[in-house]
Amino acid sequence: MADKTLEMVLLFDFFGDLLTDRQKQCFDLYYNDDLSLSEIAEIAGISRQGVRDTLVRAETVLRETEARTGLVKRFTELQKQIASVESSLDQLRLTKCSPEETALIKQISQKLQSLKG
Amino acid sequence: MADKTLEMVLLFDFFGDLLTDRQKQCFDLYYNDDLSLSEIAEIAGISRQGVRDTLVRAETVLRETEARTGLVKRFTELQKQIASVESSLDQLRLTKCSPEETALIKQISQKLQSLKG
Repeated sequence: MADKTLEMVLLFDFFGDLLTDRQKQCFDLYYNDDLSLSEIAEIAGISRQGVRDTLVRAETVLRETEARTGLVKRFTELQKQIASVESSLDQLRLTKCSPEETALIKQISQKLQSLKG
Repeated sequence: MADKTLEMVLLFDFFGDLLTDRQKQCFDLYYNDDLSLSEIAEIAGISRQGVRDTLVRAETVLRETEARTGLVKRFTELQKQIASVESSLDQLRLTKCSPEETALIKQISQKLQSLKG
């Protein structure tokens, strides 16, 4: 997935519901379903240029919201830190563990998995 | 702290930068610095009713943004799950640990602390 697409899908996941229904529809078809502008134009019943304008406007709203709030960055940092906790937990798993410890480590590992969900 | 104030401070932390400068100023003085409407009116150079209207508008923007995105809820859930990981880690700490394990558990604990920061 291209960097821009990845960025947009992430921004849409966080802030997509701040867009209008039309913006959401075009954005979803373009970035998530990978349709062409012409295909989206046909589905949405607007011109190809109309789709392009709608996408540009939606991208601007999403980028500006992130520029102001920094929330995607905040969550992304959290995920990185969780990955770092997991890596320490992996090291712990390699030590000589009692069955009780092994069970607890497994429990923590499962909780961390759900954190990433 | 009253429930509404707590809710508002949390919403402001997440979405405060989506407000106008005037809304931010009034909101911050009212909810974070606990000033009265009259005191804020004097500082902002607007009427007491103007402050009240500004606060109501700001609260509406913050609540609507959360209603659409659910990001504060998402983040709050994450924090609860992190607390749950910590509690399992506390149990692990109570087991008979080697110095190596103790060091790793401490490392994980510190990383979890930074997750909550």
